[in-house]
Amino acid sequence: MEGNLPTAAEGQPLRCKAAICRKPGSPLSIEEIIVAPPLPREVRIRVICTTLCHTDLTYWNLQVSPENSPRILGHEAVGVVESVGEGVTEVKKGDVVVPVFLSECGECIDCKSSKSNLCSKFPFEFSPGMPRDGTSRFKNLKGEIIDHFMFVSSFTEYTVVDITQLTKIDPAIPPSIASLLSCGVSTGVGAAWKAAGVEPGSTVAVFGLGTIGLAVVEGARLCGATKIIGVDINPAKHEIGKKFGVTDFILSEESEDKSVSQIIIEMTDGGTDYSFECVGKASLMEEAYASCRKAWGKTMVVGLEKPGSKLSLGCPELLLNGGKSLEGCVFGGLKPKSHVPILIKRYMDKELNLEDFVTHEVQFQDINKAFDLLTERKSLRCVIWMDK
Amino acid sequence: MEGNLPTAAEGQPLRCKAAICRKPGSPLSIEEIIVAPPLPREVRIRVICTTLCHTDLTYWNLQVSPENSPRILGHEAVGVVESVGEGVTEVKKGDVVVPVFLSECGECIDCKSSKSNLCSKFPFEFSPGMPRDGTSRFKNLKGEIIDHFMFVSSFTEYTVVDITQLTKIDPAIPPSIASLLSCGVSTGVGAAWKAAGVEPGSTVAVFGLGTIGLAVVEGARLCGATKIIGVDINPAKHEIGKKFGVTDFILSEESEDKSVSQIIIEMTDGGTDYSFECVGKASLMEEAYASCRKAWGKTMVVGLEKPGSKLSLGCPELLLNGGKSLEGCVFGGLKPKSHVPILIKRYMDKELNLEDFVTHEVQFQDINKAFDLLTERKSLRCVIWMDK
Repeated sequence: MEGNLPTAAEGQPLRCKAAICRKPGSPLSIEEIIVAPPLPREVRIRVICTTLCHTDLTYWNLQVSPENSPRILGHEAVGVVESVGEGVTEVKKGDVVVPVFLSECGECIDCKSSKSNLCSKFPFEFSPGMPRDGTSRFKNLKGEIIDHFMFVSSFTEYTVVDITQLTKIDPAIPPSIASLLSCGVSTGVGAAWKAAGVEPGSTVAVFGLGTIGLAVVEGARLCGATKIIGVDINPAKHEIGKKFGVTDFILSEESEDKSVSQIIIEMTDGGTDYSFECVGKASLMEEAYASCRKAWGKTMVVGLEKPGSKLSLGCPELLLNGGKSLEGCVFGGLKPKSHVPILIKRYMDKELNLEDFVTHEVQFQDINKAFDLLTERKSLRCVIWMDK
Repeated sequence: MEGNLPTAAEGQPLRCKAAICRKPGSPLSIEEIIVAPPLPREVRIRVICTTLCHTDLTYWNLQVSPENSPRILGHEAVGVVESVGEGVTEVKKGDVVVPVFLSECGECIDCKSSKSNLCSKFPFEFSPGMPRDGTSRFKNLKGEIIDHFMFVSSFTEYTVVDITQLTKIDPAIPPSIASLLSCGVSTGVGAAWKAAGVEPGSTVAVFGLGTIGLAVVEGARLCGATKIIGVDINPAKHEIGKKFGVTDFILSEESEDKSVSQIIIEMTDGGTDYSFECVGKASLMEEAYASCRKAWGKTMVVGLEKPGSKLSLGCPELLLNGGKSLEGCVFGGLKPKSHVPILIKRYMDKELNLEDFVTHEVQFQDINKAFDLLTERKSLRCVIWMDK
């Protein structure tokens, strides 16, 4: 199975290729690195394929620290367990696993509650290291430390992930589909299904029809929403949206005299039951909230805005709208180990349309093409296959 | 029964005394007015007693329109039906009723839904007239039109209220207690019980221990909350709060180096399950939201801020806090006709402490004393008894 890959010996550092981000916005460089063996409760996995998510793009362009250490981006992937650290019994060598940036330790108050997917023991953060000790398992051949990203770092042939972030999956599912569930598509489907709890017959508006927005549409359709209004600045998104369940479309820059929320309020006779912001833009969050119905409309923020950004709401309106609510969700409110297998089952049962998210595929050495495609808004998900 | 009151003849205008607000912040003047007979679906009631709510005080001080028409404030009351308009079958002469500023028509999508108390057929507004035709039933002896307030106008011996806003109650309940349920106390108890759905064992923070805040405390206690943190600028509110269920108290101007939300986060090991803003101040709404726990903390805005005021929330924080939500409520999420009788039953069953809200009582001719007491923050509820 290891074929032409570098030899991996359990308990030993291994040498492999990784795509390193050294400078914001500049092409990743494929370099040889050393991946340390997994420490206790960690797992080293061989990446089968990885998909490029918009958050990778955002952080690729972002100057994250003054020194801007080299790091390995990527957090949507599927892999095979190569070796496990001490105390890992949940998976074994050869198991197929999906890593998720969120932990599910199973022991803390959040993991034990059905109301939370935000593990308290290993809270998510944009850390340069591993969740338990904050250190890196990557270095280059000269000994230079390479940072992790979102506790996953999948743009490498091998990576190390904490056991609390791995979900063992049925190997029958195509890897390119499994990889989608590692972040973006799960986030969108979960936002509609789990976080918002869209009900049959609901009216829904989705602001931004990128992968996450389209996955919200798909989730809302699966939950039985009857009116799903897609909003985007790109008219081509109308046809793409129909594949997932968009019933109505608003080209957001089309109307001159009415705001998008006003149009939606007219289309829905008072506002939607659920509105989702999937871009990560404060003004759109306000529009999404405005488009929602009084008394029970729920606005769900799914898009990640930049640090320091704020949205504002009118205080008397907030009160006078009664139970109209505003909240956010991370990973669609899904618990990785508990809910990703449910999404996989619904895909295998042909209820969930996932194929249409895969618009492009490239080999690992061409990973920068995936960045170009997403930057140019040509792709939804580009699958990056590790060299075989 | 009518005793020394002016004669009221069904179907005819009647003459009685009312306390008129003619100039913002100036004492009400008790004048004789003419109250028209009820139009179809309206009811004319003789006010037994009325209580002064902070919203009356706010609008008493507010220049509401350039001309600032004379109007009759007051919206918490209990009364006896004097006569009914055409088509009214739900109540008859002699019935004891509680008016509420919100309608419950029973027919619209909101009234039929268990998720809303915001009637669509007769939406609440600060209107100078009646809900169906916008006109007034009040004029003075010179023919000058006197405006209504909150569709109730209870600072008068007789008033006219729409049938959709009246709840027939058991006459066994003391009128001064029934009057409390007409707005403020129901709003607070309902906010905890109905709008937020506080669960047994919850941790709760209540910002502002006026009548509404204390009623939230009382509601939270009734729902089984185990930690109820009261926050106020007045240290005397600690002892008063204990009567209703406050377990912990924060004097909000006490701490110099920590914000109130930081103190609450420490006291609750990560934030409350429920935080209630009961003052109507944007910055406190932000503090209440900050004091709430990630993943499931719910912030409920119960205080009415002035028109045009805004609160702001950090966008990435909103997302990264997961299911932590923000919403408002009107009348505590209660449907007047459906839920006020439940509160009355819980009072009669000695579960709900209402007596402690009545701190003062005056006769109608001394109504301005009630305004002084509330302005000076000396009273919770001052009962204003119509002259007998």
